[in-house]
Amino acid sequence: MGQIKVEKNVGGIEGLAVITPTVHGDDRGYFMETYNENDMKEAGFDINFVQDNQSSSTKGVLRGLHFQKHFPQCKLVRAVRGDVFDVAVDLRSDSKTYGKWYGVELTAENKKQFLIPEGFAHGFLVLSDEAEFCYKVNDFWHPNDEGGMAWNDPEIGIKWPHVTGSYPGNADASGYALDDGTKLTLSDR
Amino acid sequence: MGQIKVEKNVGGIEGLAVITPTVHGDDRGYFMETYNENDMKEAGFDINFVQDNQSSSTKGVLRGLHFQKHFPQCKLVRAVRGDVFDVAVDLRSDSKTYGKWYGVELTAENKKQFLIPEGFAHGFLVLSDEAEFCYKVNDFWHPNDEGGMAWNDPEIGIKWPHVTGSYPGNADASGYALDDGTKLTLSDR
Ligand SMILES: Cc1cn([C@H]2C[C@H](O)[C@@H](COP(=O)(O)OP(=O)(O)O[C@H]3O[C@H](CO)[C@@H](O)[C@H](O)[C@H]3O)O2)c(=O)[nH]c1=O
Ligand SMILES: Cc1cn([C@H]2C[C@H](O)[C@@H](COP(=O)(O)OP(=O)(O)O[C@H]3O[C@H](CO)[C@@H](O)[C@H](O)[C@H]3O)O2)c(=O)[nH]c1=O
Repeated sequence: MGQIKVEKNVGGIEGLAVITPTVHGDDRGYFMETYNENDMKEAGFDINFVQDNQSSSTKGVLRGLHFQKHFPQCKLVRAVRGDVFDVAVDLRSDSKTYGKWYGVELTAENKKQFLIPEGFAHGFLVLSDEAEFCYKVNDFWHPNDEGGMAWNDPEIGIKWPHVTGSYPGNADASGYALDDGTKLTLSDR
Repeated sequence: MGQIKVEKNVGGIEGLAVITPTVHGDDRGYFMETYNENDMKEAGFDINFVQDNQSSSTKGVLRGLHFQKHFPQCKLVRAVRGDVFDVAVDLRSDSKTYGKWYGVELTAENKKQFLIPEGFAHGFLVLSDEAEFCYKVNDFWHPNDEGGMAWNDPEIGIKWPHVTGSYPGNADASGYALDDGTKLTLSDR
């Protein structure tokens, strides 16, 4: 019954995966299973998701980088409308790839999902005029436990696509807000 | 922490509920929890969802009415894009409201969710040019267990909105396909 294609350990980072569902097209439109506990278990992911979230953002908005410190969340993320560039940063202290990042374009069109285990910082940049983003998490929200990381932390060196201006080479990390107001200027793609 | 508004027993049918999440708007767009296991439990719904589905359809497409016979599914349904008219029909043999239907307009804008317990037939009619529909189910798909019911079964008498032509009064139930090809002509709203 398996209806998902799974790329494991993307970017050489253990545990990160890109999952692509099977799309059944017909005269009416299409149908797809966006999540199937059995398929995930067969693929080696035995995760108990307890919450689903959805956010909408305009072009250039960067949500992140976020993580929960004592209640780390595994996330399964995707775009339902528009295009985003989604990034995970490995913050697992015992990881061989600590500090390494991986990014993937998630679009309503490619229907890719990005599985981010516990112990990562996560964020995304909106590339289209608007984007609607959905994700599942395996622990609840703990507002007082939230951690943030600058999107342009020079030690991490994430290459966000289509950002214009002096970024990334000359950007001064301290010149950018860490908080939720981050909005970048993007070039046409 | 409760972030949902719950209308129980809508249409006087026990177990049917309409759920509206809290939307947190800000400069970036909005954020909402579309599912929270704790909130649902607090509201009296202890359901183990195991699969999420998404379908896309064009105006006039009617998906349904469907049910699984031996593996009945509880469904939590919503529109992420566009507008649909969503209907549940009570097929629980021991129910006081057996054969009764209830319909609710679910739109990307109103963000309403419709909770349909096990033992109902379910379907929806697409009212906008396109609609994207998401739902959660508490049992897997059993293709050989599927049952269908005519959308215009005269004994049930569902009042689908905006359907033009001789329907509903004079429509001959046998004149309409029970299968997945049903596409109705709708008037402007
Ligand atoms: C995460 C979360 C947030 N909220 C509320 C708090 C705020 O009023 C509003 C927006 O929260 P923010 O934390 O600013 O949302 P956002 O920047 O999108 O960040 C979230 O989304 C990020 C990616 O989408 C995640 O990686 C973060 O872990 C998560 O915190 O939603 C909830 O009600 N429940 C939640 O689970
Ligand atoms: C329900 C289901 C379907 N499929 C496949 C089989 C087909 O190739 C394609 C479309 O299936 P259909 O059954 O025609 O989809 P649809 O008419 O939208 O009906 C579904 O969606 C309805 C409402 O959205 C539900 O009430 C029905 O229970 C469900 O069967 O997707 C799956 O791969 N997994 C599934 O769970």
